[in-house]
Amino acid sequence: MTTPDRQGDRAVERACAQAVAAADWLAGTDPQRRAAVLTALADAVDAAADELVPIARAESALPTARLTGEVARTSGQLRLFAEVVRDGACFEVTVDTARPDLAPPRPDLRRWLVGLGPVAVFGASNFPFAFSTLGNDTASALAAGCPVVVKTHPGHPRLTAATVAVARRALAEVAPEGVADGIVTAVGPDVETGVALVRDDRIEAVGFTGSARGGLALQRIAQDRPRPIPFYGELGSINPVFVTRAAAAARPREIAAGFVGSYTLGAGQYCTKPGLLVVPRGSGMRGAVVEAVAGVGAQAMLNPGVRAGFLAGLDHRLALPGVEVLLPGGVDPETAAVAPSLVAVPIGLTADVPDLLEECFGPTSLLVEYEDEAELADLARRLPGVLTATVAGEVGEPVLAELLPLLEARAGRVLWNGWPTGVAVTWSMQHGGPFPSATTALHTSVGAAAVRRFLRPVTWQGFPQDLLPEALRDANPWRLPRRVDGVLRLP
Amino acid sequence: MTTPDRQGDRAVERACAQAVAAADWLAGTDPQRRAAVLTALADAVDAAADELVPIARAESALPTARLTGEVARTSGQLRLFAEVVRDGACFEVTVDTARPDLAPPRPDLRRWLVGLGPVAVFGASNFPFAFSTLGNDTASALAAGCPVVVKTHPGHPRLTAATVAVARRALAEVAPEGVADGIVTAVGPDVETGVALVRDDRIEAVGFTGSARGGLALQRIAQDRPRPIPFYGELGSINPVFVTRAAAAARPREIAAGFVGSYTLGAGQYCTKPGLLVVPRGSGMRGAVVEAVAGVGAQAMLNPGVRAGFLAGLDHRLALPGVEVLLPGGVDPETAAVAPSLVAVPIGLTADVPDLLEECFGPTSLLVEYEDEAELADLARRLPGVLTATVAGEVGEPVLAELLPLLEARAGRVLWNGWPTGVAVTWSMQHGGPFPSATTALHTSVGAAAVRRFLRPVTWQGFPQDLLPEALRDANPWRLPRRVDGVLRLP
Repeated sequence: MTTPDRQGDRAVERACAQAVAAADWLAGTDPQRRAAVLTALADAVDAAADELVPIARAESALPTARLTGEVARTSGQLRLFAEVVRDGACFEVTVDTARPDLAPPRPDLRRWLVGLGPVAVFGASNFPFAFSTLGNDTASALAAGCPVVVKTHPGHPRLTAATVAVARRALAEVAPEGVADGIVTAVGPDVETGVALVRDDRIEAVGFTGSARGGLALQRIAQDRPRPIPFYGELGSINPVFVTRAAAAARPREIAAGFVGSYTLGAGQYCTKPGLLVVPRGSGMRGAVVEAVAGVGAQAMLNPGVRAGFLAGLDHRLALPGVEVLLPGGVDPETAAVAPSLVAVPIGLTADVPDLLEECFGPTSLLVEYEDEAELADLARRLPGVLTATVAGEVGEPVLAELLPLLEARAGRVLWNGWPTGVAVTWSMQHGGPFPSATTALHTSVGAAAVRRFLRPVTWQGFPQDLLPEALRDANPWRLPRRVDGVLRLP
Repeated sequence: MTTPDRQGDRAVERACAQAVAAADWLAGTDPQRRAAVLTALADAVDAAADELVPIARAESALPTARLTGEVARTSGQLRLFAEVVRDGACFEVTVDTARPDLAPPRPDLRRWLVGLGPVAVFGASNFPFAFSTLGNDTASALAAGCPVVVKTHPGHPRLTAATVAVARRALAEVAPEGVADGIVTAVGPDVETGVALVRDDRIEAVGFTGSARGGLALQRIAQDRPRPIPFYGELGSINPVFVTRAAAAARPREIAAGFVGSYTLGAGQYCTKPGLLVVPRGSGMRGAVVEAVAGVGAQAMLNPGVRAGFLAGLDHRLALPGVEVLLPGGVDPETAAVAPSLVAVPIGLTADVPDLLEECFGPTSLLVEYEDEAELADLARRLPGVLTATVAGEVGEPVLAELLPLLEARAGRVLWNGWPTGVAVTWSMQHGGPFPSATTALHTSVGAAAVRRFLRPVTWQGFPQDLLPEALRDANPWRLPRRVDGVLRLP
């Protein structure tokens, strides 16, 4: 007989040992081979969609069409990182040739980025594919040459196991025996196992998507290790939307429909859900929004735990003095589906009750009205760090000159007449923002640049060509973009 | 009457307010203007050398020639960062044009890096210019568009004040009134003031060079703020040197002389001082090293505090069981100059007493002998994170295939037949390594890439050209290298 706790510890021990066994091989792959690993996983996920989607459907209550789309997004991400690796700019190869003529003489110096080593990944409940087992964090870690140990998500444990099995079959085709099994492994869903994983000295970094509470607790564990490691947590945010007076006058119904569509999408279960709408008083925006949301039906939430968390958060918000209920929402007693809610507060209350500017994960949003542009800018100045900040405006409005720099200083992504839900997976995406939207503002968890989180620089000094890593040799066999003696050069 | 504590708090309040007042202007400078700021500081430091060097000499006990060289290094660093800013690759501009034809449609997305905001800089005792007031951290923060608040170093308070005065005069020529005084400011030398500075909500990042104890305590304060901020600490390391059997046979005296020159340089007061020499038993290396060091005279240390710290650390080391004194060192009772010391331990003791692999800041080093290559590799495997790792070897030796990857995994810089003291300020330098040599292995504090520490990404989505930051517009007025639709393009 063993306790579950000890089983978890044994699983961590096994997974970390496997990851270490795979680490040297993966770190040593050239871009073509590493891209082949990522592409094999992409193909395998696509091919297994019919097997995996029903499991996800059963565990998450997400609709099949949404899950099928998410599978395509997941394989697309893996393919983007294959492209990132083949492109090779991510390795930041920088060569300064020897200058014995200088005083002091300068040795030959060659810098590049190498993988940190095994990475622990904590996926998200709301993206069982794209932010989970083979999602962003895993794809970017593998692109960096780092094996991944996945903490099984308690919201989709069967899907985690099935996805790892799919990955292993694919990896067996592209990696040597004894290595393939360690590239992506998983450990159990319980909290203690997650803690043991972050504490394990063989883990070199953590990628996390989820709640601020859980993320910050794990970050502290990562920081308190004898050898602290980087922790990358995406923690969600209020994602404000500012509607200018001219925009409200020109397109009230269009903006209302767009906003309501965005905040109720997927039952409001996106970290980019717009949770705050700031509109001019007397513009008719408030009525237009209430009208638009009244037409949205109830939707199932991810699972009973997420639903209970949402309802508790909403109750807390509704109990605050000064909060006005515009639409109460509510739970269908038969299906447990949740109807969207909308509340309003006086704009000054957001200064007195900072809780109002915190994320409430689910189908609700907060509407505030401003009297003049000074009040608008004042609210922008009080914003905590956010993943996204959106402006619905008209070109030429003077308020933009004040508002946009305030938003750039507080947001990872600033949007113009668009909606923050829907995070394109591209070279230029930024998903992450100043604290508390992410544990560090310096990185993204989505898009090509996510790979930088799992890379560190090393400089080789004075080595003969044959002893240098291939990527650093004069002949540039990997055909990388390089900076040579200060000048950036394309291959 | 006010307490010193409150005076310090008031200085922090004033400096942070000035930094905030300067932040928008500095962040909004185009590359030419920002480079002009850095160049003006470089010119001013050079012009003030005759004024500043004597102050540094009086406060640090460093020789004039060394200090004069350090001034040149400091202005050279500022000029390198001017070049980095004008080059503009550091802004990582990435454009993905709109693709309405895709499903889902992709909006126009433009990503770049912007400054974090005001940065606190804690300089080093051993580099009163190059790692202090206008040193690496300051130059790279300014390049990122971040004003700097310098914590005055208790080892060179007058020099800190004089350098800030020089900077202010220069900045008044290139920055508007009301802004110039906030670009580089300083607060007092006491510990409480430093703590208050790191705690101040207006400070967005910290650059630190110094002891592990001090750095880790400040890092914890940075992490424990309501809004945690990045902390970049360079904490020093043991900087091992591995001599292969073939190299020891071929060049024993040359290697011994180089090693001794490096570890006794500047009385061993460099964070890159080689503190561990690993040589083949029976090779004659041990005798050659003892002979070389016996010819090195006593040198003044930076100040009585540094000397006392060194002597206490050395006493601790000498008291360990198994430690053999090859040269005892000692302090000249008249001049307080310190003679270099050298101790040896059995190689196995470095496994039992991990303290032996920690830095001892000053003119001492540790010699260990290995019997065979397995013992050599075993020691490499047990190394903590280090700033540098050096191999004295011969091309073609089989041991290198095992040793070099082990060192790349543990060091920020790997050297071949060179010496780690002397950190070239270039595009490709890496100064920083895995914990505990630095608080994070992901960055460098020296060289062009140091600017990345003070930058964070922001993506602009769907904006018309006129509302975009200049750097992101199609016309590319700053002539930046950019990645457009996945393809890296030079200006």
